[in-house]
Amino acid sequence: MSASRIYLDYNASAPLLNAARDAVVAALSITGNPSSVHQEGRAARALVEAARREVASLVNARPDHVFFTSGATEAASMLLTSHYTMGRASLRLSQLYVGATEHPCILSGGQFAAERVCVVPVDANGLLDLAALKAVLAAHDRSEGLPLVAVQAANNETGIIQPIAEVAGIVKDAGGLLVVDAVQAAGRIPLDITKTCGDYLILSSHKIGGPKGVGAIIAQSDLVMPRALVRGGGQEKGHRAGTEALPLIAGFGAAAKVARARLDAGGWPADARNMMEAGIRRIAADAIIYGADAPRLPNTIFFSLAGMKAETVQIAFDLAGIALSAGSACSSGKVGASHVLAAMGYEENVGGLRVSVAPDMDENEVGRFLDVLRMIVERRDRAKVNPGKAA
Amino acid sequence: MSASRIYLDYNASAPLLNAARDAVVAALSITGNPSSVHQEGRAARALVEAARREVASLVNARPDHVFFTSGATEAASMLLTSHYTMGRASLRLSQLYVGATEHPCILSGGQFAAERVCVVPVDANGLLDLAALKAVLAAHDRSEGLPLVAVQAANNETGIIQPIAEVAGIVKDAGGLLVVDAVQAAGRIPLDITKTCGDYLILSSHKIGGPKGVGAIIAQSDLVMPRALVRGGGQEKGHRAGTEALPLIAGFGAAAKVARARLDAGGWPADARNMMEAGIRRIAADAIIYGADAPRLPNTIFFSLAGMKAETVQIAFDLAGIALSAGSACSSGKVGASHVLAAMGYEENVGGLRVSVAPDMDENEVGRFLDVLRMIVERRDRAKVNPGKAA
Repeated sequence: MSASRIYLDYNASAPLLNAARDAVVAALSITGNPSSVHQEGRAARALVEAARREVASLVNARPDHVFFTSGATEAASMLLTSHYTMGRASLRLSQLYVGATEHPCILSGGQFAAERVCVVPVDANGLLDLAALKAVLAAHDRSEGLPLVAVQAANNETGIIQPIAEVAGIVKDAGGLLVVDAVQAAGRIPLDITKTCGDYLILSSHKIGGPKGVGAIIAQSDLVMPRALVRGGGQEKGHRAGTEALPLIAGFGAAAKVARARLDAGGWPADARNMMEAGIRRIAADAIIYGADAPRLPNTIFFSLAGMKAETVQIAFDLAGIALSAGSACSSGKVGASHVLAAMGYEENVGGLRVSVAPDMDENEVGRFLDVLRMIVERRDRAKVNPGKAA
Repeated sequence: MSASRIYLDYNASAPLLNAARDAVVAALSITGNPSSVHQEGRAARALVEAARREVASLVNARPDHVFFTSGATEAASMLLTSHYTMGRASLRLSQLYVGATEHPCILSGGQFAAERVCVVPVDANGLLDLAALKAVLAAHDRSEGLPLVAVQAANNETGIIQPIAEVAGIVKDAGGLLVVDAVQAAGRIPLDITKTCGDYLILSSHKIGGPKGVGAIIAQSDLVMPRALVRGGGQEKGHRAGTEALPLIAGFGAAAKVARARLDAGGWPADARNMMEAGIRRIAADAIIYGADAPRLPNTIFFSLAGMKAETVQIAFDLAGIALSAGSACSSGKVGASHVLAAMGYEENVGGLRVSVAPDMDENEVGRFLDVLRMIVERRDRAKVNPGKAA
């Protein structure tokens, strides 16, 4: 097949937007260190601050509440700590509560010891069990410190959207702090940090069409902040030391601007996703689409085909020119069982296939995806009927 | 003056090399996440591993002993911890010993509490007091854990080169681990991790002509490693989680290749530096060039002019089209007293002017620098004679 490849793995890493590429390339010509006071340094500083305003705008935050990090994982490692400060006073967070379907950078507990991490279950639709969250927070021993809760706005594998406003209310009532992993939600659904979406948002540039290697913590207020993880100079108002990753930050800002404009213009279309899901059900009546009854991101489908290993299907798609993923890409090439599906009660050691698409995926691409799927399913069905002739 | 600006602040951030720019731009087209197993992911992985080989080559290390970070500051924050592992066993480092002229990211002590950081003095030439180092290591209480020592290969302000091989011998004799901040030395003087330059080297891309926002820890062996600072997925063999900063890593690799080739071809020339120093002494007989009697990097001069604040001189140079720095750029725009000069015994709250130059700085640029210096010194001398007419 001479057709170009189709990339359906936006949740692993989105292709770089043209505007982000231009911003990265322009920033490569800025020689100065943003901490230097000469003309070259001031030009670098101006670029960082312009990007900060764009990223803030994506979630309606104040620019001075945006703290750039090397990515979402570093942001999570920084936020998930016992050591917070309120102004100059220290504030202890004694226990971490995380959803069962969180990304590994949250599930790992950051700086918390394993015995200080409490996993809150999700229901069969992948939604956080709010009654369970209330119960564990009610049982929290405040004599040791406050509770810290970390929940994703949307799941990286299934696209399932958590009821963050309700979670935020519960955490607030319990006097805790809420970290929201908004990596997959940002740019795909509206997020407004002034309207109950937690105390801290985590964003990642390369999931919204910016370059890989940069992310941000966005605080509702900078009054209460985690202890710095990366320490040295006074960058990011002392919260994150180290020379700023200028080209990446500039690209992140440009991508945030595009994402903001898309949300303002009506949001991320679900058409391609809907056409693909209808096609999957038509071609393989026995396919399971996970979280189909829950609110989900408009770009994500997580499904499995009866009797087929996700890795096998993934490889078949790859050979046919289509990139999608078996599970998430978050750790080095590891495929197989999904902790997300296990948490949703799928007992088998089952893997899922993740399709995550561009906002402008066209019908031809949907058609090619479905053609390959049909070929894979027909091969499976032939093998069932006549196992000796299986390819 | 219509002449283009002259950038003499390489130690703050070196201009991007063309080869590094090309590598960054090429990497921007690689969509895949290096952890994905499809074709796009494998292309991204290949780029990361190629860069790892180039960076390893710069210091004669094994590629699998290179661990990419978001920069030198993160590398320092990760290495400066009590929590090391030797295979699966944990290893406790109970006390950190640092040189008095270290970069803030080392002096801050990383994850050590302030009372666990012991500062080892330097002499009037800025060289680490080896007798003092021996003495504090001899007094180290091993019942609590091993000693961790962190020393820079070359100072960021003065360019003074520490006797790392001797330091490494002393630390080895004391049964400790040695972290060498090689950020300013890399590419400017030869470094060979197999020949006693410590257990871990810290490198920064943007100081060798690569992009800002990436660095590395290079281990002599990966048997003993610090606990991961950034946790989540299994990237960097579990030592540093988070999607790799692909474009920056590619650019870092390209810059390392150029730096390696320059060292192989005879090294970084000191001609421009020597001409400038001779000129400074000629124009201002009362100028102090710090560390002039110590081995120094071939690109760095740290000096002061009697009776003039460093900031004032820096601004005058900036207005005349020349970027240099007053002290280092490591924290946000802060200028003034230098902790490096204070450690060397300069009692006054004196600041220094740092000139740090390109390997290919030409005579014209040296001439323009000296012309501006002459103008500044003449203005000072006129003001001394006739204070009422000072500009």
